[in-house]
Amino acid sequence: MQTGDKYIQTFTLTSAVYNGFIEVFNDRNPLHTDNDFAIGKGFKGRVMHGNILNGFISFFIGECLPMKNVMIYSQNINFTLPVYENEEMEFNAEIAGFYDSVNTYEFKFFFKNTDGRKVAKGNIQIGLLR
Amino acid sequence: MQTGDKYIQTFTLTSAVYNGFIEVFNDRNPLHTDNDFAIGKGFKGRVMHGNILNGFISFFIGECLPMKNVMIYSQNINFTLPVYENEEMEFNAEIAGFYDSVNTYEFKFFFKNTDGRKVAKGNIQIGLLR
Repeated sequence: MQTGDKYIQTFTLTSAVYNGFIEVFNDRNPLHTDNDFAIGKGFKGRVMHGNILNGFISFFIGECLPMKNVMIYSQNINFTLPVYENEEMEFNAEIAGFYDSVNTYEFKFFFKNTDGRKVAKGNIQIGLLR
Repeated sequence: MQTGDKYIQTFTLTSAVYNGFIEVFNDRNPLHTDNDFAIGKGFKGRVMHGNILNGFISFFIGECLPMKNVMIYSQNINFTLPVYENEEMEFNAEIAGFYDSVNTYEFKFFFKNTDGRKVAKGNIQIGLLR
């Protein structure tokens, strides 16, 4: 793993993921669960929870890298467009830096929808466990 | 809601939450699922996924504020200590600012464990939907 390495992963925010997230975390805010409420606020329908994307990031770091001895130290995310049920997203991550002294990699990432527009972007710092 | 307002919420990272998160997101990295692996890396046992805390944040913003017309714009989190299965955490949030021009609140938050030590901290920016 070195600076500039790129990773692409497709995630679909299926109804199973959406319903499972609600079952686990109980966030039933009307923006996420009430189509009429969400449409009244200018959206196409109920908006998926942004933190579902953070769950996908957990999977990416834990399961999609060439090494398993990794741990997330910090992360940030900006939600730039709403995501709707059953949307497919392409997750793009790039290693922005490796800091040998602290054994830490930094990733930049974004999620884009099938229209090619970014729905979220941010950074992740991970450590390698020795 | 105004600058300086404080919120406290208790979250327990139960086995049901842990297992549900894995079922939804499929992050079975050995740090999170293999006690022997985690102990070999210096932990007391398998370490809970940090992004479970982000799910708790989703619940806090969506369900625990005095208004429901809210949406997370961005958030960041630093994981400062490992969290283990069935740990109870006290989530503390404070409104750090309100930006009228963009109709946005900023929260500072931390999670502390029952030893009183911070296990994670960060910021959340939310918008009010008109």
